[in-house]
Amino acid sequence: MSESQREIGRRVLLSEIRKHGRIPRINLSENTGISRATVTTITAELLREGLIEEVTSETPDKDARRGRPKVDLKICGAARLIAGAKISNRTISLELLDFEGTQLANLEAELEKPVFEAEELAQVLAGLVSQLAAKIGKNLKDVSGLGVGIAGIVDASEGFVHWSPSLTKRNVQFRDVLQDTLAIPVFLDNDANLVAMAEKSFGLGQGHSDFIVVTIESGVGMGIVIGDEIYRGTRGCGAEFGHTKVQLEGALCRCGQRGCLEAYVADYALLREAMIAGGARADRQVDEVLEAAKTGDAAAASIVERAGRMFAMGLANIVNIFDPELIILAGEQMQFSHLYAEDVIQTMRKSIVQIDKAPPEVVIHKWGNLMWARGAAAYALENVSELALQGMADHVG
Amino acid sequence: MSESQREIGRRVLLSEIRKHGRIPRINLSENTGISRATVTTITAELLREGLIEEVTSETPDKDARRGRPKVDLKICGAARLIAGAKISNRTISLELLDFEGTQLANLEAELEKPVFEAEELAQVLAGLVSQLAAKIGKNLKDVSGLGVGIAGIVDASEGFVHWSPSLTKRNVQFRDVLQDTLAIPVFLDNDANLVAMAEKSFGLGQGHSDFIVVTIESGVGMGIVIGDEIYRGTRGCGAEFGHTKVQLEGALCRCGQRGCLEAYVADYALLREAMIAGGARADRQVDEVLEAAKTGDAAAASIVERAGRMFAMGLANIVNIFDPELIILAGEQMQFSHLYAEDVIQTMRKSIVQIDKAPPEVVIHKWGNLMWARGAAAYALENVSELALQGMADHVG
Repeated sequence: MSESQREIGRRVLLSEIRKHGRIPRINLSENTGISRATVTTITAELLREGLIEEVTSETPDKDARRGRPKVDLKICGAARLIAGAKISNRTISLELLDFEGTQLANLEAELEKPVFEAEELAQVLAGLVSQLAAKIGKNLKDVSGLGVGIAGIVDASEGFVHWSPSLTKRNVQFRDVLQDTLAIPVFLDNDANLVAMAEKSFGLGQGHSDFIVVTIESGVGMGIVIGDEIYRGTRGCGAEFGHTKVQLEGALCRCGQRGCLEAYVADYALLREAMIAGGARADRQVDEVLEAAKTGDAAAASIVERAGRMFAMGLANIVNIFDPELIILAGEQMQFSHLYAEDVIQTMRKSIVQIDKAPPEVVIHKWGNLMWARGAAAYALENVSELALQGMADHVG
Repeated sequence: MSESQREIGRRVLLSEIRKHGRIPRINLSENTGISRATVTTITAELLREGLIEEVTSETPDKDARRGRPKVDLKICGAARLIAGAKISNRTISLELLDFEGTQLANLEAELEKPVFEAEELAQVLAGLVSQLAAKIGKNLKDVSGLGVGIAGIVDASEGFVHWSPSLTKRNVQFRDVLQDTLAIPVFLDNDANLVAMAEKSFGLGQGHSDFIVVTIESGVGMGIVIGDEIYRGTRGCGAEFGHTKVQLEGALCRCGQRGCLEAYVADYALLREAMIAGGARADRQVDEVLEAAKTGDAAAASIVERAGRMFAMGLANIVNIFDPELIILAGEQMQFSHLYAEDVIQTMRKSIVQIDKAPPEVVIHKWGNLMWARGAAAYALENVSELALQGMADHVG
């Protein structure tokens, strides 16, 4: 068995054990095609490393009379402590997981302002991860890795933020700033990608290898899962669904360009139109507009309805490009329910290429910031697993 | 070594040999991490099967004095004969390759009509593949596989045509019809996917694992390569770039929907507008419109210019979604040069998410139908290789 085969074997077996929760050695061999002898060798290494543990099998043993209890392997929860954080406009949400992915603690903290210097935000995060760890009697340094989801344009592989609404500056090597401050491994990604990760790991994307997640908050985000992996593009600015154009030289977007989907469906877009229809009331809130639409205000209804049609058109474009099995519309806030409405989905279905086969399934998943944070933690868990295996390659050989 | 490991090993080594052209056994082991002993066993099987052959190494042998000439392994060209066909509006183009991918012969035939019954088109193809094989003194039955590219909506994995402009009926299990008539394995795909395959195998996509091909003929097509594989979607109707919407309730498209990109950039779209500007001259041709635009006709210039802006907007949407390393604009006909124009590409660059990093590279690749046919043959080659390996699994064990 060559070195690379051994490393691949460790990765495959650890992932297979994680997938099944509990699994006997013999099934590992059958499921992966790795020989029984090699499974025995590699699982012994993983046991010694403390990444997995043996537990008495829960399945009844036909050969119980032999007196040897059947043994399953499982991930050792205590092996590592993992944190995830989602940085929002005015809050940071955090989740603490063990190595099995079990939720140990969580935390939601208000931010005193929406935009930070990178170093300042790193200090805030360091304090919050310490607080989170303290909830189970641990310290920041006991955490093996932190996943961080941030809005904006993020090159995850480089840990680089091209631009984020949470940071004062463009072009920040933010992962390094975080690692310098927290002194633990940090894994940074665009927040919509981490929603996709959450859906894949423990949400509605479980068991699907290819699907699209569309997130709606104050902006419109997208996560693309292809072949069980998050597709991130070359420079970290793929999946920018909110800035795909739905109108040539259309409405002005916050990004400075014209005709972006966000310029028609985001909260500020609805308010911009409501101001025209409602006179000079600049203090009008989105939920007032939505309420007015429901209670028969024609102008408000027209504003909300067009947002829905534009959103349907954007979604149809995604379907025409990806032809996905599943689209998950994920969002926290009830205020965007008009975009998830059945007639919006129905308009999308009419705007895609028509074949005599059912269109992609569309599911709506309303969830809170803590689920985003759990997605960030799942991302960290994946990377911490990889670090643990690399560590083994270095010293076990 | 388990059965599945042996099969994986065969696939990895055959692919590695194909990639390198000529390679010594020792490098196969180093490149793939497969042990020297296993490389020896598996390459012996591939040699017995006739899929590869030994040749004297071209690299000078430092140990030549030992008197044992150094040996490389290469794909055995004579192992299989592969054909590819591209079905166009009025022509079928065909290419014949050997198992190494060397071009042996080609053929272009006029079609007497643009739309066929499936069985009729299969008969036409059978005759043409026979003619093609006859060019090197072979018969249809000597061909190990035929790749077929056809316009329309094709589920490649099922060999099923949801719809094609070349077929009278919708919902045709066209691969089975072809296999019944030709009595050889047939691999069917959307023609734009086969352009992507051609670009990947021997065109501008070589060495790129992720890129997008946009094809412009009378319609607008797209091929998506992600992780070295063509991404085809779930039902075979992904990558429908021409039917992504660029205008809410916009111009009527041939597909019956409104606002599709094609309804603004295809030849019929330009003619529709030219008819309005030029009076009732229904016989006007696209090249007349393009010529008029160049020579100062304001209406013609406006028509062509808007097509370019709509195309740029569509391309920008693709970049905002995929953030690809490379976009290849591939088309046969010079008549679409206005869409490849530098100011169109420049408009696209201004319409994508702006970061302080260079935008994706855009290259223009003008080629003929024979290149599309070669892509179809490359697709068949990939599948015939797989069939050969599966055959080995059955009888070598």
